[in-house]
Amino acid sequence: MKTRFILINTSHAGNVGGTARAMKTMGFDDLVLVAPRWANVLRREETIQRASGALDVLNNARIVETLDEALDGVAHLCATAMTPRDFGPPTRSPRAHFAELLGAPDMPLKNELTAPVDHGPRPDSIAFLFGSERFGMQNEDVYRCHVALSIPSDPQFGSLNLAAAVQLIAYDWREALGGFAVQSATAEPQLADAAAVAGMLKHWEEALTDIGFLDPASPKKLMPRLNQLFNRAQLSPEEIHILRGVAKAMSQKTLRAAGKTAAPANPSAEQ
Amino acid sequence: MKTRFILINTSHAGNVGGTARAMKTMGFDDLVLVAPRWANVLRREETIQRASGALDVLNNARIVETLDEALDGVAHLCATAMTPRDFGPPTRSPRAHFAELLGAPDMPLKNELTAPVDHGPRPDSIAFLFGSERFGMQNEDVYRCHVALSIPSDPQFGSLNLAAAVQLIAYDWREALGGFAVQSATAEPQLADAAAVAGMLKHWEEALTDIGFLDPASPKKLMPRLNQLFNRAQLSPEEIHILRGVAKAMSQKTLRAAGKTAAPANPSAEQ
Repeated sequence: MKTRFILINTSHAGNVGGTARAMKTMGFDDLVLVAPRWANVLRREETIQRASGALDVLNNARIVETLDEALDGVAHLCATAMTPRDFGPPTRSPRAHFAELLGAPDMPLKNELTAPVDHGPRPDSIAFLFGSERFGMQNEDVYRCHVALSIPSDPQFGSLNLAAAVQLIAYDWREALGGFAVQSATAEPQLADAAAVAGMLKHWEEALTDIGFLDPASPKKLMPRLNQLFNRAQLSPEEIHILRGVAKAMSQKTLRAAGKTAAPANPSAEQ
Repeated sequence: MKTRFILINTSHAGNVGGTARAMKTMGFDDLVLVAPRWANVLRREETIQRASGALDVLNNARIVETLDEALDGVAHLCATAMTPRDFGPPTRSPRAHFAELLGAPDMPLKNELTAPVDHGPRPDSIAFLFGSERFGMQNEDVYRCHVALSIPSDPQFGSLNLAAAVQLIAYDWREALGGFAVQSATAEPQLADAAAVAGMLKHWEEALTDIGFLDPASPKKLMPRLNQLFNRAQLSPEEIHILRGVAKAMSQKTLRAAGKTAAPANPSAEQ
């Protein structure tokens, strides 16, 4: 869905750069600045530094003088407002509003102040409006919007940084749109099957008996406890191999110390 | 639940301040820095500036030399890792992992790479580990963790700012813990009842006839269309009052221009 981020009267160049980066991480690139403090804000050093590679978002950004000029082609307007005012669109949390807007009324809506609004047809375009760092959004800009999004935050300290607020809204909106797949940061875990775990436990039972930790005449609950532990650990085939190696070494060391010779390892039993 | 944020080898003072602010907005205050680049990072100007009032988090923060010293009293360790490595804990999205960790297995888990892990008992404490801005987390630190959290982001540009990543994790974790209530930024909307809407529409029907826009002999679908429009608009009692005033003015102006005199307004008929 066509998605635009609009920053109104932004004063810190770093926040413009941080906004560009936050948008890009969530796959958005339509940025409009309304009357920013610095006319050259898109080219300032701090902006570029904080954008950290999201230069295409900065290059495509538009600077306009009035909010009117920023709203072409956008059907649904979301104010972001933290300070209370006595009039305006209904206040909603981003997640609840997005779920409802995209037609998922059966999702649990928690912490909602107001009943869901009947939006009629689903809009095909959306804009998120952010006010200045110091004063937030002006009343007359909030009045133009369909909803006032409020990020649920500590009532004692609700002061989010501007770029951080953009990051949260962009994240929630992207997730509501279906989300990006999680990038695997580690190799896919492979689970050993239950037979391999049982074989390993049998191996350990013998080894623990060899080292005198388990008394076969009074085994108590030791093996079931280890079984539970290893079930929770969700062992991989490699880890089964390691644990069998440990069991083998326990037995060999003990039997050798006792002057006996352990049976040579049978590779086929190692699995 | 006891919640700690651990920054390892952080090099930018601004990110430490931004982290403190992000934590505080979501109601967290336990920050530990492991071997930061600047020994005096908690007192640097940029830190304090970006913390923007979250000074208590900075004042309570600890600086330690090794990750070991940062882990006292924490049961469940979450790495945050974006770059792939060939070994380590399973990769999960924050929302899915938190929902499962807190015992909500019936929540829809989308974009999951791996089957949910059986965590056994719910932990009573958690730490989120963040690596350096430039190199992320070291392998040996990831290996100590129970899970690698990966924030779903654009595969072409997954580079989140450190403080922005802290903000997202803190937000998702707070929401998973039950969330803060949404602060109402606007007055609670009050809905006019259907009788008031019907009375207003009757008033408009007369006025639209008076101004010649509605032909009672051929009304077409005008009034049902307006009825639908005003239903979607979810009118308040004040708005009913305004719309009745508009209708009255239409009639009066037209009848006066035609040399007739409109009946004096009857206040009791105004709602």
